Amino acid sequence: MPQLRIALAQTNPSVGDLSANAGKLVEWTRRSADRGAHLVVFTEMFLTGYPVEDLVLRTSFVDASIATLSAAAARLADEGLGELPVVVGYVDRSGVTPRAGQPKGAPLDAAALLHRGRVVTKTAKHHLPNYGVFDEYRYFIRGDRLPIFRLHGVDVAIAVCEDLWQDGGPVAAVARAGAGLLVVPNASPYEREKDDVRLSLCVNRAREAGCALAYANQVGGQDELIFDGDSIVVDAAGELVARAGQFREELLVTDLELPLADPLATFGSFPVDAGDGTTITVERLRLSDDPLPAYTPEPPAVAPHLDDLEEVYSALVLGVRDYFTKNGFRSVILGLSGGIDSALTATIAADAVGPERVHVVLMPSRHSSDHSVSDARDLVERQGLNSRLVPIEDIVDAFEKQIDLSGLAAENLQARVRGMLLMGLSNEHGHLVLTTGNKSELATGYSTLYGDSAGGFAPIKDVLKTTVWQLSRWRNAQAGRESELLHRFDAPPIPENSITKEPSAELRPGQRDTDSLPPYDVLDRLLADYVEHDMGKGELVAAGHDPELVARIIRLVDLAEYKRRQYPPGPKITPKNFGRDRRLPITNRWRETADS
Amino acid sequence: MPQLRIALAQTNPSVGDLSANAGKLVEWTRRSADRGAHLVVFTEMFLTGYPVEDLVLRTSFVDASIATLSAAAARLADEGLGELPVVVGYVDRSGVTPRAGQPKGAPLDAAALLHRGRVVTKTAKHHLPNYGVFDEYRYFIRGDRLPIFRLHGVDVAIAVCEDLWQDGGPVAAVARAGAGLLVVPNASPYEREKDDVRLSLCVNRAREAGCALAYANQVGGQDELIFDGDSIVVDAAGELVARAGQFREELLVTDLELPLADPLATFGSFPVDAGDGTTITVERLRLSDDPLPAYTPEPPAVAPHLDDLEEVYSALVLGVRDYFTKNGFRSVILGLSGGIDSALTATIAADAVGPERVHVVLMPSRHSSDHSVSDARDLVERQGLNSRLVPIEDIVDAFEKQIDLSGLAAENLQARVRGMLLMGLSNEHGHLVLTTGNKSELATGYSTLYGDSAGGFAPIKDVLKTTVWQLSRWRNAQAGRESELLHRFDAPPIPENSITKEPSAELRPGQRDTDSLPPYDVLDRLLADYVEHDMGKGELVAAGHDPELVARIIRLVDLAEYKRRQYPPGPKITPKNFGRDRRLPITNRWRETADS
Repeated sequence: MPQLRIALAQTNPSVGDLSANAGKLVEWTRRSADRGAHLVVFTEMFLTGYPVEDLVLRTSFVDASIATLSAAAARLADEGLGELPVVVGYVDRSGVTPRAGQPKGAPLDAAALLHRGRVVTKTAKHHLPNYGVFDEYRYFIRGDRLPIFRLHGVDVAIAVCEDLWQDGGPVAAVARAGAGLLVVPNASPYEREKDDVRLSLCVNRAREAGCALAYANQVGGQDELIFDGDSIVVDAAGELVARAGQFREELLVTDLELPLADPLATFGSFPVDAGDGTTITVERLRLSDDPLPAYTPEPPAVAPHLDDLEEVYSALVLGVRDYFTKNGFRSVILGLSGGIDSALTATIAADAVGPERVHVVLMPSRHSSDHSVSDARDLVERQGLNSRLVPIEDIVDAFEKQIDLSGLAAENLQARVRGMLLMGLSNEHGHLVLTTGNKSELATGYSTLYGDSAGGFAPIKDVLKTTVWQLSRWRNAQAGRESELLHRFDAPPIPENSITKEPSAELRPGQRDTDSLPPYDVLDRLLADYVEHDMGKGELVAAGHDPELVARIIRLVDLAEYKRRQYPPGPKITPKNFGRDRRLPITNRWRETADS
Repeated sequence: MPQLRIALAQTNPSVGDLSANAGKLVEWTRRSADRGAHLVVFTEMFLTGYPVEDLVLRTSFVDASIATLSAAAARLADEGLGELPVVVGYVDRSGVTPRAGQPKGAPLDAAALLHRGRVVTKTAKHHLPNYGVFDEYRYFIRGDRLPIFRLHGVDVAIAVCEDLWQDGGPVAAVARAGAGLLVVPNASPYEREKDDVRLSLCVNRAREAGCALAYANQVGGQDELIFDGDSIVVDAAGELVARAGQFREELLVTDLELPLADPLATFGSFPVDAGDGTTITVERLRLSDDPLPAYTPEPPAVAPHLDDLEEVYSALVLGVRDYFTKNGFRSVILGLSGGIDSALTATIAADAVGPERVHVVLMPSRHSSDHSVSDARDLVERQGLNSRLVPIEDIVDAFEKQIDLSGLAAENLQARVRGMLLMGLSNEHGHLVLTTGNKSELATGYSTLYGDSAGGFAPIKDVLKTTVWQLSRWRNAQAGRESELLHRFDAPPIPENSITKEPSAELRPGQRDTDSLPPYDVLDRLLADYVEHDMGKGELVAAGHDPELVARIIRLVDLAEYKRRQYPPGPKITPKNFGRDRRLPITNRWRETADS
C-alpha cells in the first residue's frame, strides 16, 4: 500500500493577528518539510485564530483573511516549500447573496489546500454548531463541498471540525465517494471529564468514512476557552495510531500506509446525497498519481493522557498565560488574603507568567485574623513574589464617616475598597488584575460586585471549592518539578495552613463560610448538577440531593446569576449597541485601523 | 363578504410569570368579548414572555408553559369565554428527537388556537432569527406546519413573527393554500429610525399571501429590549386599515370584510412546497362555516406615529419603568453632577417611577465647579426629588494616603469613590442604581470601570451625546403635559444651564470634554456609522469622515470595547459555566424552585 507521512500542526494562533499566524504557517511548514512530511494539516481558522465572533461580519477582516491566504501560498513557494501540500483553515466569503437573516458578507469557516504557490481548492464547514459556546449560525454560511485530492496515489478528503460531530454531510459524502484519508482541521475546546469523547468520535467517523482520519486541533487560551490540542490519528479500522500531547504546541508526524486510489476514478465535480437532506458537491482533483517509493516509517508518537487534576491545572495556567501574553500585559496583581483561593490563584499566576511578574497586595481589615497576614507572607516567601501591605481600616472609616452602612452593605464596602486599591494600582502601573473568586462562591453569590469580582481575568471562576483544595494539594506535590506549565519551586509553593484552615471571608468578626453555606462537598455536588448539568429541581431531588437544600441553593444561584451582569443593561434604541449586540473577542490582535 | 371583528391584544407580559400572563390572557379575552370581537390574537410567546433565552432549555419551564396553555383554555371556557377563539403564543415541545447540536428538549416558539376549552390546533415559528439580538437556532426547533381554520365562513391562517420577515415558508404556503386572513403574533423590538419598515413588511406580505394581515406586537421593556407595540392591520390590497399606539398596551379592535372561503375546500392535512427548500404541512380545520349576519362595523383606529424624539424618550421611560417594576424595585438612586447626562437620567427616572421614588446624591470633589452643586440643586427643586450631599474629598484623601496615584488612575479613583457610595446606599436601602453614561462617552471609553459605570441599569447607554441634548430640550418643551409616560412638571424639569454649559467630567482642574474629543456633532456622526452601521475604516473615509479622526476614534472604540467587560472572563473547564455559556434574562419572574 502507498505510504504518506502526515504532519499535524497542533499550534497556538493569535486571534486577529493574521501576519503572525501566516508567519507561523511558514515556520511550521518548514519544520514539517525538515521532518520529511508529505502533507501538513493546520487547525480550523488557523490564519485568523478561532473564534473571531463579530469580527467576521466586517468586510475588511474577511478581505484580509483571503488576502493572507493567497500571500501565504505564494510565500511558501518563494521559500522553497511549494511542493509540500498544506491544508489550512481561514475565513472565506461565499459566492451566494445572503438571505434575510443570514450573516453580512456571507462568511465561510473555510479550509484551503495550498500547493506550488497556489490555492488549489477550498471547502467550508457544513455543520454549524450553535449551542454552548458556539453561535455559528450568526457568523457563517454553511459549506456544501467536499474536495478529495490525490496525493502520491492516495485520495485525501478535507472536512472541518463540527462536520465530524454531526451525522450526515461531508463524512457521509466521504463514505459514498471513497477516500484513503480524511484530514480534519479543528478548534475544539477543552472540557473537563469529556471521557475521551474526542477519540471515540474519531474512531467512529473513521469507520463510517471507511478511511484513516487525521484530526488536528488548536491549542491555547482564547478569553474563556482553552484549546487543549490532543490531535489524533486513527486508521480505517478505528485503531489509534498517534496522539499529540495536551496543552502544548506539537508537530505530530505520523507515517501511514493507505489504500491506492482507484486509477479509473473520474476527476471533476459530482453531487452526492449527504444523508442530512442536503447535497454535497464532491470535487476530485489530482496533485500526483504515483505512490512514493517505499521507505522505513518512523515509530508513531502516542502521548499519554494527563490525569484529571493535571489536566485542569494545565488548562488554568495556559488560560492565564495566553490571556496575559496575547493582550500584551507585563505583570499581574492580586489581593492575597491568606486563604486558599487567592493562594491558588497566585500560584497559577506564578506558573503562568513567572513569580517575578506577580504582584500581591495584603489588605487586612479590622476583621482580619493574624494568620491572614502570616499565611500570605509565607506564600510570598515560598514563591518569591512582589508584595506590599495596605491596611484598609482608615479608608473604610472615611467612607463610614460620610454614610451609615450596616450588615451586608458594610461587608461589601470592605471588599470594594480592596477592589479599588487593586484597580488603582493597575491603572497606575499597568498590571492585569486577577480576581480570586472560585465557582462555588460565585455561583451562590458570595462575592461582591465591584469588590472581589473587580478585575481583568478570573483564573478559578470555573473551579469549585473542593477542586480548589485538590488542585492546591496536587500542585504542592509537584514541588521540585519543572515543565512548560510549572515553574520550579523546590518547596511546596502553598502554605499548608492556607489549605487546612477553615474558609472565611473575614468581613465580620468570627465569620465562617459554613455559617451560611452547607459543607463544600455537599454544595459542590449540587452545583455541578444544577449549573453544569442543567438539572431542574425535580431531577436534583431524584438524584439524591436534599430537597430543602436544593430549593435554597437554586434560589441563591438564580439570584446571583441575575446580579452577575457586568456592564449594566439599558434600553437599546439603535440597530447595534455594545454587549450582546456587538460581540468581539477580548483577546484579539485585529485592528480595524491597520487596514489603511 | 363575511365580516369579522378582530381584536389584537397588544400587551406587556412578564418573562417567566406564567400565571400572571395567563391571568392577563383571560382579562384581555374578556375585554375583547365585551367589545364584540370574533377572534382575539395575542403576541408571540405571550404566556412565557419574550425572550426567555436559556430558560427554554429547562424541561420544567417548557412543561409549565404547556400546562399553562391547557389550563388557560379550560379557564376561558369556565369563565364563559370559550366561544371566542383565541390565538396565543407560548413555548411548546417538538415531537422530534433533537439531532446532535440541536437544543435540549426540542422547544418550539409556538402559537395555539384555543376554543371551547380546548387547544384546537398549534403551530410554531418556521424561520428562526439568529442575528442581532436573536439567537434562536440555540433555542428552538423549526416549525413546519400552517394551520388554517374556518371561522364564520372565513379561512384564517396563523404564522409567527419572523415568518413574515424571511422569504418562503408559511407566507408562501398561505399564498398557495389560500386564506382570507393571516394573523401573526409578534415580539418585534423597537429600533430608532426603522423608517416604518414594519408597515412595509405587512403591506408586502399581505399582497404576497393574497389576504388581509393582522399583526399583533408585544409592548414593554425586557432588559435591553423595548417592544413598542405598533400593531397593524392591512387589507389584502396592502392598504393600512388600523394601527395601535406605540409604547402602550392597547386592544386594537378592527372590523374586516373578508372573502368567503371556498365551500368545496377539503379539510385535513396536505403538504405544500414552502419555496425555501422545505415542505410545510397545511392543516385545514373548521370552527364554523356560516358567515355572521351583517352588522355595522366600528370605525377603525389608526394611531398616529410619534415623532422621532418622543419615540426615543418614550422607549427610554418604558425601559426604565419595566426594568424597575418587573424586578420588584421600590426606588432608584443616581449621582447628580449638575451636567446634562445625569440631569436627563434623573428626569427619565422621575417620569418612569415618579419623582418621589428618585434619590439623588450630589458628590462634589475638589475639582467640582460651583455650578455643579447649584445646577443639581436646581433640578432637585424643579422635580421634587430626594437628595443628599456627600463630599468625596476626605475619602479620596484616605486612599491617597495609602497608595500614590496620578493622572488617569487618580481621575478613576474619584469616579470609583462615587460608584462605591451609590452602591453602598443601594445595598443598605435597596435602591436600583442608575448609571448616567451616554453612548458617546461609553463608546470612546470616557467612563470608569467600577466608577460611573457601576449600577444596575443604564438608561441612556444607547443615546449619543447630541441626542441627550435634543431629548433634554424636547422634554423641557413638554412642561405642563401629562401622559402615561410623562410626569406632570409645570415648569421645564431640566435647568437651562445644565443644557447649555460646556461638558466636563470635572475629574481634574479645568477639564473639558473637547480637550480629548472632537466636537460631539462630528464624533456622534462617526460613532453612528462605525458602531451602529458597522462600517470599516475604508467605508468611513468614503462616507466623508476625516481619515485621521476615523483612525483615532476606531482605536478608542475598539479599546473601550475590550475593556468594557465587567465580570472578568476566566478559563472555562466545565460543560456549563456562567456568562455566555448560560444565558438567562435578568428581568424574569420564573423560579425553578416554584415547580414543587
